[in-house]
Amino acid sequence: MQFFNKYSSIGVFDSGIGGLTVVKKILSMLPNENIIYFGDTARVPYGSKSNATIIEYANQDAKFLYNKNVKMIIVACNTASSVALDTLREQFDIPIIGMIEPGSKYALSKTLNNKIGVIGTHSTINNEAYSTKLKKFKNEIEVFEKACPLFVPLAEEGWIDHKATQLIAEEYLEELKNKEIDTLILGCTHYPMLARLIQKVMGPDVTLIDSGTAAAFEVEDYLNGIGLRNDSNNIGEHQFYVSDLPAKFKIIAERFLGTEIRHIEKVDIDYLVKG
Amino acid sequence: MQFFNKYSSIGVFDSGIGGLTVVKKILSMLPNENIIYFGDTARVPYGSKSNATIIEYANQDAKFLYNKNVKMIIVACNTASSVALDTLREQFDIPIIGMIEPGSKYALSKTLNNKIGVIGTHSTINNEAYSTKLKKFKNEIEVFEKACPLFVPLAEEGWIDHKATQLIAEEYLEELKNKEIDTLILGCTHYPMLARLIQKVMGPDVTLIDSGTAAAFEVEDYLNGIGLRNDSNNIGEHQFYVSDLPAKFKIIAERFLGTEIRHIEKVDIDYLVKG
Repeated sequence: MQFFNKYSSIGVFDSGIGGLTVVKKILSMLPNENIIYFGDTARVPYGSKSNATIIEYANQDAKFLYNKNVKMIIVACNTASSVALDTLREQFDIPIIGMIEPGSKYALSKTLNNKIGVIGTHSTINNEAYSTKLKKFKNEIEVFEKACPLFVPLAEEGWIDHKATQLIAEEYLEELKNKEIDTLILGCTHYPMLARLIQKVMGPDVTLIDSGTAAAFEVEDYLNGIGLRNDSNNIGEHQFYVSDLPAKFKIIAERFLGTEIRHIEKVDIDYLVKG
Repeated sequence: MQFFNKYSSIGVFDSGIGGLTVVKKILSMLPNENIIYFGDTARVPYGSKSNATIIEYANQDAKFLYNKNVKMIIVACNTASSVALDTLREQFDIPIIGMIEPGSKYALSKTLNNKIGVIGTHSTINNEAYSTKLKKFKNEIEVFEKACPLFVPLAEEGWIDHKATQLIAEEYLEELKNKEIDTLILGCTHYPMLARLIQKVMGPDVTLIDSGTAAAFEVEDYLNGIGLRNDSNNIGEHQFYVSDLPAKFKIIAERFLGTEIRHIEKVDIDYLVKG
């Protein structure tokens, strides 16, 4: 049984640094909230791994945050959300918000022709997480999914408007363009970094849905709804933990977050595995 | 103390599947050898991680093979070779062959103008593993190194002659071209899959060095030298172990190996961590 109040932190985890794009939204929408972020940089990425492994890792990540008495956990990783969310909700007695539900609801509120595209990692797309959720909410919806595995390394390299990135985006997105979708879910927390390029390739009539932004709205609604919103007048504290700290980490992480990272601490992987 | 004889297996490990390009060479050069391969697919890639984490993982990988009574271990991963080889040689009382020494020696035997280029992961390049080794062997050598992190995901996607891959290669390799190198070390076991494209970008006068091929020659020399070559008339047995088995694994692995993979087994990650 977890003990927390409205001043407790919001826990956020991701396979690595992609989830920082979600934290960025929360920082601007809910500046008073305390945040504890965990990025599993020693085992990143999750999107190319098996469901069994992703569930095992997500459980360890969530446990790390749970042990820090957070009031809720945001799974700021579409891959982990699509595979592990049900298991996490069974395991932990605090609210857990993933990326798939908020992103789906937001997309449904935007589409006019009921044709929605979804892009994500191999795992998110193979598991049909978005199409299952979208069709559950609205049966007549048509969903077209496409894995775009090169978008993550391109975003991490910072090649967000490179000619090569455009060629790759054109190839990945061609089949979605042919389906006349009017809404496209960016089903990976890295992808908002490539949003301008993706918009250019898809054309101005397609609405891009940032699953992280949608999740941040859901967090706000949720906290207001149950009276757990932090009403302090102070700016919240933000703690960042990672399972590995490679040489270029700070540069890449700050590119994702869009601001300076001050407090960052490495967590021993053994501690994570052995719980 | 390890007990083995010439019929014992050769152990090979890599962060994932890149090392299969090395196994492919060994299969053709030493068809009678038994091989046990371990690919750490649950924690791949290593090339973007810290030295401490790479050393920890490499130790666990080597221990897994050592416990199977192999007669030697090939570190078929340039990243692990560049960071962890010394530690592994201290820890295990069997011969351990990495990628850096054989690749360096082979490059030195080919260069005419003493200007050698090296491409690899962030980790391999940041650690200056090749330039240190090359200069130790031949002081007057000039070495120019460049990290090419997008080559790994491109090879895994199978985009080996895509226009986008060519653009990326042109950008990465431009500064090496300007240095008038006559020899280029492919310092990552994924890169031989992109060799044709890299050769096209560098031009016909630059000799490409496949570190895996160089290591396979070294293994052959070594086994002959100490009388541990398997002289059986039978084709060797080949066992493949991985720490994760994602959906598309077999397809990608067979693309790397260039032949069918029959026996493959998943090793529990807990077993690896706890030894």
